[in-house]
Amino acid sequence: MLTYSFSDIGNASLYEHLYHSIKEDIVSGTLKPQDRLPSKRSFAKHLNISTITIENAYAQLLAEGYIYSLPKKGYYVSDITELVYSPKSDRVHASCASEASSSAFKQESDAGVSVVKEAPVAYQVDFASNQTCAERFPFATWMKLMREIMAEKSTELMTNPPGIGIPELRAAIAEHLQQFRGMQVSPEQVIIGAGTEYLYGLLIQLLGREKVYAIENPGYTKIARIYAAQQVAVRHLSMDRSGICMEELEQSDCDILHISPTHHFPTGIVTSINRRNELLNWAAASDGRYIIEDDYDCEFRLMGKPIRSLQSLDQMEKVIYINTFTKSLTSTIRISYMVLPPHLMELFQQKLGFYSATVSNFEQYTLAKFLREGYFEKHINRMRKFYRNQRDELLSCIKKSPLSSKVTITEEDAGLHFLLRIQSSLTEAQIQQKAAAKGLRISSLSQFYHGTYEHTVPTFLINYSALRLEQIPMAVELLGQCI
Amino acid sequence: MLTYSFSDIGNASLYEHLYHSIKEDIVSGTLKPQDRLPSKRSFAKHLNISTITIENAYAQLLAEGYIYSLPKKGYYVSDITELVYSPKSDRVHASCASEASSSAFKQESDAGVSVVKEAPVAYQVDFASNQTCAERFPFATWMKLMREIMAEKSTELMTNPPGIGIPELRAAIAEHLQQFRGMQVSPEQVIIGAGTEYLYGLLIQLLGREKVYAIENPGYTKIARIYAAQQVAVRHLSMDRSGICMEELEQSDCDILHISPTHHFPTGIVTSINRRNELLNWAAASDGRYIIEDDYDCEFRLMGKPIRSLQSLDQMEKVIYINTFTKSLTSTIRISYMVLPPHLMELFQQKLGFYSATVSNFEQYTLAKFLREGYFEKHINRMRKFYRNQRDELLSCIKKSPLSSKVTITEEDAGLHFLLRIQSSLTEAQIQQKAAAKGLRISSLSQFYHGTYEHTVPTFLINYSALRLEQIPMAVELLGQCI
Repeated sequence: MLTYSFSDIGNASLYEHLYHSIKEDIVSGTLKPQDRLPSKRSFAKHLNISTITIENAYAQLLAEGYIYSLPKKGYYVSDITELVYSPKSDRVHASCASEASSSAFKQESDAGVSVVKEAPVAYQVDFASNQTCAERFPFATWMKLMREIMAEKSTELMTNPPGIGIPELRAAIAEHLQQFRGMQVSPEQVIIGAGTEYLYGLLIQLLGREKVYAIENPGYTKIARIYAAQQVAVRHLSMDRSGICMEELEQSDCDILHISPTHHFPTGIVTSINRRNELLNWAAASDGRYIIEDDYDCEFRLMGKPIRSLQSLDQMEKVIYINTFTKSLTSTIRISYMVLPPHLMELFQQKLGFYSATVSNFEQYTLAKFLREGYFEKHINRMRKFYRNQRDELLSCIKKSPLSSKVTITEEDAGLHFLLRIQSSLTEAQIQQKAAAKGLRISSLSQFYHGTYEHTVPTFLINYSALRLEQIPMAVELLGQCI
Repeated sequence: MLTYSFSDIGNASLYEHLYHSIKEDIVSGTLKPQDRLPSKRSFAKHLNISTITIENAYAQLLAEGYIYSLPKKGYYVSDITELVYSPKSDRVHASCASEASSSAFKQESDAGVSVVKEAPVAYQVDFASNQTCAERFPFATWMKLMREIMAEKSTELMTNPPGIGIPELRAAIAEHLQQFRGMQVSPEQVIIGAGTEYLYGLLIQLLGREKVYAIENPGYTKIARIYAAQQVAVRHLSMDRSGICMEELEQSDCDILHISPTHHFPTGIVTSINRRNELLNWAAASDGRYIIEDDYDCEFRLMGKPIRSLQSLDQMEKVIYINTFTKSLTSTIRISYMVLPPHLMELFQQKLGFYSATVSNFEQYTLAKFLREGYFEKHINRMRKFYRNQRDELLSCIKKSPLSSKVTITEEDAGLHFLLRIQSSLTEAQIQQKAAAKGLRISSLSQFYHGTYEHTVPTFLINYSALRLEQIPMAVELLGQCI
C-alpha cells in the first residue's frame, strides 16, 4: 500500500502533506493513470491517521481533477495531460514560474456569486441579490484607517498616482495573493482599476480589438454584454463537467479565452487539472492566444479546499489573472485588479501607460492599509462564518419543509449560492412568475445561457448572501407555495 | 447714442444688465453688423455709470465674439452666424432648450490647466505640474462629511448604486451647473464616471466605433492617445483665433468633434459666438454628428467673465457636455461627469445601462454633500484667490527680473498657466534642455501639436498652480539663466 512519511512536514497540516504527496506521485508518474487508490479506511489505518484526513485529501484531489471516483468502487488516478510547451527562459519572470507554496492552505475555502445587477426593487425576499448587508461592512475600521491615512499621508494623497495604482496597494495585493492563493506575483505585474468591467475594457485595448474573444456558456451574462458593447467578436463555448469543452475551443477561431476555472458561475464547476493543462497547451500553441482567468470569488468557498489558480500553473506568460474586492469587501467600493504576465505588462506600459488611475488615492491607501494590517483577512473569516451560517439555516429550513421531497440541491459548495432543481410540472418561467407575485426574486439557471435555452428540469440559483436570517423560514415557505 | 434703462434690473449687476442688453440688441438685429459702439467714456457719461462697468461689459462681449475691436478705432458689432436649424420639438427636453439664467454671473471667473501626467520626478521647480498642494485640500471638511455619511447612510453606502451614479450626486451636479454655468440640466442627463478618460471610452461605445472623431490641434495630447488606444479614426483640426477652423471641419469626414470651446488648452482661445453658431450648424446638418464639449476647467478663470457653455446654446441635442472634479477638487479623487442630450441618454440606457458604477459610493455620497452644503463653492473661491496670488507673484517677479525685456506673456487669463514667448537664439528644445539641467520642468507649446512642429519663437506653458510662493523668485531666476 502507498506509504508516506509524516515525520517532517513543517507547518503543513497532515491533510495538506498527504494531498501534496499524492499529487506529486501523480504528476511524476509514480502513480499511473487508472491506478486505484487505497480505500479511505484501510489507508487511514495503514498511515495511522484519521479517515477524515484521507477524506479531505481525496476530496481536494478530486475537486482539482487529479483523481476520479467510480461509485461503490473507489478512487482512481486520472490521466493528466502534460504541459507540452516549456517556457522560453528569456521571457519568463523568475518569480512567476516558481511553484505555488503551501501557504495557499492558510485559507480554508473560497466561493461567491455574482448576479446581473438591477436597480433595487421592492422584493420581500431576494434570492438573486449579492449585496452586502450594511451591518456586515467594517465601517468603524474603514473610518479609522481613512482618518489615519488623511493624517499621515496628506502629501501622498494629493500626489498623482501611477495610472496602474499606488505601489503600496499593488504590493499588498501581491502579498495577499501569495498568502491566500499561493501565487508568486510581483507588485510590478499588478494593475488597479475601478471594477472588473473597466479592466475588461483595458484588456481589449491591450490585446487588440481584432482578436476573437470566447466566453463560457452558461456564464456571467454581463461579460457577453461588455464584449458586445465594445464591438469585438465573441464566441460562446459550452461547458462539460471538467470546464470549457476542448473540442469546441479547438474548433473555434478564438484568440482570447475568458473563463473562471476555479469556480464557474453559475454552475460551480471547477476546471479539472487535466482540462487546465489542456487549456494552457491550447494557449501556448499560438503567439496571440491568452487566457483571462476571472477569479472573482476566490475568497469565499465555504467548504472546499483552495483550488490553485490557473495563473500559478502557467509557465508561458499566457494567463491574465483578474480579481476584485467588490465581492469580498463590498460591491459599492469599486476596486478590482489584474495581474499581467511580465511581457504584457511591458506592452501595457507602452500602449496604455498614459491612462490616469480610475480609483481615488483615498481608497487606494485605505485599502492597502486594510490589507497590510490584517483587517481584510479578519473580515473574510468573519464573512465566511456568516455565510456558512446563512447557508446552513437555509438548507435546514428546506429540509424540514414540504419542499424537501420535490427538490434536489446541488453545488452547495459553489459559492454564495446553490442550485435548486425542482420536480414540477411548471416551467422555470411559470415558477419565476409565481414567485414574483409573492414578492420573491429568483434567477433560473437558463437565464445564464446564451440565446434561448430552458432547462427541462426547472433549476434555480439560490443566493443566500443577502438574506436576513429571520427572513429564511418565510422565504422557504413562500418558495414552497410556488411549485 | 444707445440708451438702456437700469431701473428694473432685479438681482443682476449693472455690468450683467448692460452685457445682456447689448447682446440682445445684437442677436435681435437692432444693432447691425459693423455698427460702431459708443466709446467707453462717452457711453459711461451718457448712461451715468462708471467706465469700468462699460469696460467689463465690452470685454465680455468681445471674449464671446459678439463684438470686435479695431485698434485705436473702437468696438464694432460682429456679423453673427444664425442658427439655421431649429429644434424638433418632440425631441428636445423642455429644461434643455431654455435660456441660461443670469445666475451664470454668480461665478466670476474660470480657467485651469491640464498637462500630460508623468510619474513624479525630482524637479526643483515644476512649471508643467497641475497637482494640488496638500495644504490646499480641505481634508478636515472631507473627513467630517465622510464620517457623517458613514453614520447616516450605512444602508445606502452598501446598496448597489445605479451605474450612472447616485441620484443625490447627479442632482447636486445639475444644481451646480445651474448656479455656476447657468446651464439648465436635468439630473437624469448626468452620468458619473471615474475620470474623463473613462467617460471618453464610454462615449466611443455609445456613439460608435465606426465614427470619425476630430480633435483640436494643438490640444491636450492625451485625448489623441486615448482615441488611438481605442482604435478609432481621428482627425486633427487646426485652430484660428476664433476656435476650430470651419473650413477644415467642413472638408473633413468627421462625425464627432471633441473640443474645449470655453477655454482651449493650451492656447486659452475662447471660441467666438459666431464660431459657436457655425459649429452648432455643422452638427445639426447631419444626424450622426455630435460635439463633445470638454469644459475641464470652467471653475477657474481668474480674470475673465463666465463664458456660456456651448451646451446651453444647443437646441438640437447635439452637444455632450463633459467636466471633472479632478481639476477643481484634486486630481487624485477620480470623479468626472458628462451631460447627455435626452435622446442620447435613452440610447445610453439601452446600450450601456448595464455597466456598474466606477466611482465608490463612499466618495459619491461625500461629494454630493460637499456640493450641497456649499463647501465646493467655498473651496473654489479660496482656490481662485490662491491661484490669483500665485500668478500675480510670478508675473511681478518676471517683471522685476532681467527676463522681462526678452519675453512676452500672453493669455495670462488662460487658466492656471500662461504662455511665455521668449526672444532667444535658442530653440525650444535647447531651452528645455538647459532648464532640465537646472531642475526646471517646462512644457513647450509645440509639444501640444500633432506630429512634428516647432514654434519659430520659443513659446512655453508656465503652469503656476503647483508652485510654492517661496519658490517663485528662485524659479524666475533659474528660468532667466536658460535663455
